[in-house]
Amino acid sequence: MARGAVQDPNFEFRVRESFARQTFMETLGATLVLVAPGEVRIALPFNARLTQQHDFLHAGVVTSVLDSACGYAALTLMDPNAGVMSVEFKVNLLAPAAGNRFVAVGRVVRAGRTLTACQGELRAVQDEGEVVVAIMQGTMMAIRDRAGITD
Amino acid sequence: MARGAVQDPNFEFRVRESFARQTFMETLGATLVLVAPGEVRIALPFNARLTQQHDFLHAGVVTSVLDSACGYAALTLMDPNAGVMSVEFKVNLLAPAAGNRFVAVGRVVRAGRTLTACQGELRAVQDEGEVVVAIMQGTMMAIRDRAGITD
Amino acid sequence: MARGAVQDPNFEFRVRESFARQTFMETLGATLVLVAPGEVRIALPFNARLTQQHDFLHAGVVTSVLDSACGYAALTLMDPNAGVMSVEFKVNLLAPAAGNRFVAVGRVVRAGRTLTACQGELRAVQDEGEVVVAIMQGTMMAIRDRAGITD
Amino acid sequence: MARGAVQDPNFEFRVRESFARQTFMETLGATLVLVAPGEVRIALPFNARLTQQHDFLHAGVVTSVLDSACGYAALTLMDPNAGVMSVEFKVNLLAPAAGNRFVAVGRVVRAGRTLTACQGELRAVQDEGEVVVAIMQGTMMAIRDRAGITD
Repeated sequence: MARGAVQDPNFEFRVRESFARQTFMETLGATLVLVAPGEVRIALPFNARLTQQHDFLHAGVVTSVLDSACGYAALTLMDPNAGVMSVEFKVNLLAPAAGNRFVAVGRVVRAGRTLTACQGELRAVQDEGEVVVAIMQGTMMAIRDRAGITD
Repeated sequence: MARGAVQDPNFEFRVRESFARQTFMETLGATLVLVAPGEVRIALPFNARLTQQHDFLHAGVVTSVLDSACGYAALTLMDPNAGVMSVEFKVNLLAPAAGNRFVAVGRVVRAGRTLTACQGELRAVQDEGEVVVAIMQGTMMAIRDRAGITD
Repeated sequence: MARGAVQDPNFEFRVRESFARQTFMETLGATLVLVAPGEVRIALPFNARLTQQHDFLHAGVVTSVLDSACGYAALTLMDPNAGVMSVEFKVNLLAPAAGNRFVAVGRVVRAGRTLTACQGELRAVQDEGEVVVAIMQGTMMAIRDRAGITD
Repeated sequence: MARGAVQDPNFEFRVRESFARQTFMETLGATLVLVAPGEVRIALPFNARLTQQHDFLHAGVVTSVLDSACGYAALTLMDPNAGVMSVEFKVNLLAPAAGNRFVAVGRVVRAGRTLTACQGELRAVQDEGEVVVAIMQGTMMAIRDRAGITD
């Protein structure tokens, strides 16, 4: 589905290195499990420190891993001089985020020079199988020549 | 701006008690600072454990406090039998979330029997003053008679 | 992708009859081209009466056919007593809506008793082939027992 | 609330001239009623040609006037070389769009060099008074040096 081509052959290293600097992913216990052109996947085990009042994953946690997956999916198709920042996103919570483990899948829908549109989904691994519990649609931006913004 | 009236005189206790059960707010270091009819505010000090790769607050953290502020703003106007869950939200990130301290403000725009529309903003306390760094628009749902969902 | 099953064997007639009452679709020149369980498609020929200032289809026209496609996709899976209304949607405009003809595809992602989440895309038929120029993510609601709301 | 300053003293003429080229606004019967720095208002009388199946204004019509109001609010703060295009928006439909006349208010929340964030609301003039029936949150983009895109 991704419209856009790899411009930096080093994209995987770059995504992994930038992800490692996201201290919040470590705070959540999230890890990168796939870095491909236009697609990134992040795994998150359930943890009782990440819940809302009904013991499901907090919607902000759901959003966090979807946002990183979408942002890094966008970065895989950016040129070496660009850093990535989130412009906006929208999340629909389809079902309570219950499960032992979650995988956030972020995919590029269209990559432009400045803006990249992405879609994401959060899959919950439950006893009965895998269920999509949330979907994201959002916009990522390539930042160039701004102090402190590199990836 | 809130359309809707208080139906549960005990709303403040109920919001505070439910917030205390959101372990993720404790993980973030977020605290409730205002519970009023149709409006809730949550404070969050900056913490290096919550950042993305450029050392700003991760967009997922921004979303987390906005979602809790909007969700609990909705709960202040719900009847005593309802629990609250997020249906969907949209966040625009207006500027990097830099600052020493942040305040998420959630407000009810329209409260219906089942769905409540909310808007939120995240204010960053910076050396030069207060800046709105993100805005949210979303939908909260009143859940009744479902096991495990009470507030 | 649709989670949900047909509850009304008469769903196609019901969608076609309701669509025929949407005078705005006639004003746009839009027609139903597919009504299947969890998926509806609407075709729209280009017309110079529907443009914005750069002679592309206005974003509101793009949204109109996507909203009707998603709303009726949701209705295909609702019970006979429900009418459908749009709660909210989000549209990303990926490229200028240029083309001779457009097809809006609406699909159910998850159908619940009250709320149905949908995704849509607008395909533009251009000289070089078909291009997705916009995507939608939104929420539709089943309305029961409210005067004037039937489908 | 608008962050951003007027860069083109001729902004009102520019908005009015561009609006006049939006043939779709004429098709709807919509007219510009206010062009101020960071804020634009568009009026729309009810018309039976613009309805959905329950005789309310179609959500796509609601979106159309909100999108033009937000886009032109953004244009009031852009430099003379920029054209404006919609990147994305999100609309919550708070109540059925019933009324004799509607006013879409679009406001700039933050104006950047490339992206401008806006919020909008649609007010319905009903017998009992004015009611906000929909809200929008979206992103507009300044386009420079692209053939065919001027405002």
